[in-house]
Amino acid sequence: MSPQTMNAAIYRGNKQFSVEQKPVAMPGAGEVAVRIAYCGICGTDMHVYHGHMDARVGFERVIGHEMSGTVEAVGTDVDGFVPGQPVVVRPLDHCGDCPACEAGHQHVCHNLKFLGLDTDGAMQEIWVVPAHTLHRLPDDIRMDHAALIEPVAVACHDVRLSRLTAGEDVLVIGGGPIGVLVAMVARDAGGNVVISEVNPSRLAIAEKLGFATINPKQTDLAEAINARTKDKGADVVFEVSGTQAGVDAMTACTATKGRIVMVAIHAQKPEIDMFRFFWRELELIGVRVYEKEDYEKAILMITSGGVDADTVITDVSPLSDIQSAFEELDASPTALKSLIKVGA
Amino acid sequence: MSPQTMNAAIYRGNKQFSVEQKPVAMPGAGEVAVRIAYCGICGTDMHVYHGHMDARVGFERVIGHEMSGTVEAVGTDVDGFVPGQPVVVRPLDHCGDCPACEAGHQHVCHNLKFLGLDTDGAMQEIWVVPAHTLHRLPDDIRMDHAALIEPVAVACHDVRLSRLTAGEDVLVIGGGPIGVLVAMVARDAGGNVVISEVNPSRLAIAEKLGFATINPKQTDLAEAINARTKDKGADVVFEVSGTQAGVDAMTACTATKGRIVMVAIHAQKPEIDMFRFFWRELELIGVRVYEKEDYEKAILMITSGGVDADTVITDVSPLSDIQSAFEELDASPTALKSLIKVGA
Repeated sequence: MSPQTMNAAIYRGNKQFSVEQKPVAMPGAGEVAVRIAYCGICGTDMHVYHGHMDARVGFERVIGHEMSGTVEAVGTDVDGFVPGQPVVVRPLDHCGDCPACEAGHQHVCHNLKFLGLDTDGAMQEIWVVPAHTLHRLPDDIRMDHAALIEPVAVACHDVRLSRLTAGEDVLVIGGGPIGVLVAMVARDAGGNVVISEVNPSRLAIAEKLGFATINPKQTDLAEAINARTKDKGADVVFEVSGTQAGVDAMTACTATKGRIVMVAIHAQKPEIDMFRFFWRELELIGVRVYEKEDYEKAILMITSGGVDADTVITDVSPLSDIQSAFEELDASPTALKSLIKVGA
Repeated sequence: MSPQTMNAAIYRGNKQFSVEQKPVAMPGAGEVAVRIAYCGICGTDMHVYHGHMDARVGFERVIGHEMSGTVEAVGTDVDGFVPGQPVVVRPLDHCGDCPACEAGHQHVCHNLKFLGLDTDGAMQEIWVVPAHTLHRLPDDIRMDHAALIEPVAVACHDVRLSRLTAGEDVLVIGGGPIGVLVAMVARDAGGNVVISEVNPSRLAIAEKLGFATINPKQTDLAEAINARTKDKGADVVFEVSGTQAGVDAMTACTATKGRIVMVAIHAQKPEIDMFRFFWRELELIGVRVYEKEDYEKAILMITSGGVDADTVITDVSPLSDIQSAFEELDASPTALKSLIKVGA
């Protein structure tokens, strides 16, 4: 009997993916094979596409981690999973041995492997992963919606670490995919949310999702926030723009004793108004990925409709069209979340 | 009967103080007149001396706020104070009406008056202050030591907001007066404290106070902290240097999920490694002055000997010599805390 094969999209460098036949791997001890339904294109995947992460991923890598799927096969030493169950993968594999793991912070392990970057990912029909990364889904969940669970878990983590309480004023700086998900999770937690964004298409989506919006190219953001909050400022500010302008706005708009959550990844060191941190006793909270409880919360957000998945998902393409899906998302000012339908 | 007069040191601009006779004011409703014993020279007072705060303080101002004294006279509508009691003043007068006051954060009131800068201060024999600013002292406290309560309260506030727990590794970047007080309060709370400092005289004082020290001009600070903490990093870092080098060190030396307390006042916007905040989920905590409970804790620190006041106080001068006291402190690489003996 010849080995089974499957379709897999391989990043070959220079903005190119090739969809090829690969042998299907069997799950080993402690592993589960997952048949992928959908896989979203993350901002990190776009960084790979642009060649910014070639040193890390190489040119033989199957990327992708914002997935949904069903258990296909279960290896030895795996409890609690059987074929056919809908699942998502929390794509973090920790070492168990570093100071962060020893302190119980496995999600920021010093030797963390991110599945789909440091190992092969979900842009293939069958993905073999460690069983500890799996979360069981309700049987009636829509699999396209379930592909949002990973980015929603990012938002759940960010909102949880902000210590947001109901009735607080929230400013989200940057209305891209993560920005609107953070806004939805913050609204679900009872926050009065305003989104700041400069892109007209993204402003329109934010408004369609029911959010108050401010375009800081047209309106002074700090003045507008003060006007809305009787000169108090926003109790919680999420900086999701990754820009110096966003960093300037975050200190200008935060209430005394307020919290700023640094969601964006600033590769360059921004200049930050430390005097304002002193003057108003501000707090800055660094956040990275998610923990188990954030995934459980994200699953609830998707199943409860707390996230308007149909508005967030703007495009769906088959795996055979992955090349054009990346090209179109890269060129599009209107797309928010683009999914790849990996399964048949 | 002619009005009583007293000695007061008045800041006249251009690095000059004049000691003059002023009429003694009577305490009004809700006020208390305090006979000043000692008043320390704060870093902020040195900023005044250098002319950096002329727009705020003018040229008729009696400065000074790190004081000790005794109740001299009590106005109407004051409960709980009688003449002769030893006291210190928490030199903050809030408006009661702004968003910060309404939220219960009077110490960061949006219209805060700092006594001794925005009003006259303690470099005079009799100082009239609002009764709500007073803290009663034990009768047997040494009045020179009690003049350290205000800066010790700064340190108590900073350590309290750091959420330091016993056994945690602490790095204090900058071994000036506030740095060593923060280090002493952190040690009293059970922290394993290291002080980073470049000035040899201050390194010698830190070592005399029993602290491990690192000179980052001679040793790589991050490597040294990693070596001491098995590659974990410091759980709590206090940035007290006010330098870009200190800001670079704070992100390099902090453990995953650790807290950085921004004690120094950075007038310029430093460049800050936000990638590290993401990667290690760091937290930055802005701190300003103190609250009532920090004063009560500081009084206990002084009376219990948790602060080695005799080592911290390096100079004492009479009020008549205030000019030379400022000049000497400004020129001295070895002084730590310089006190003015205001009373006879």
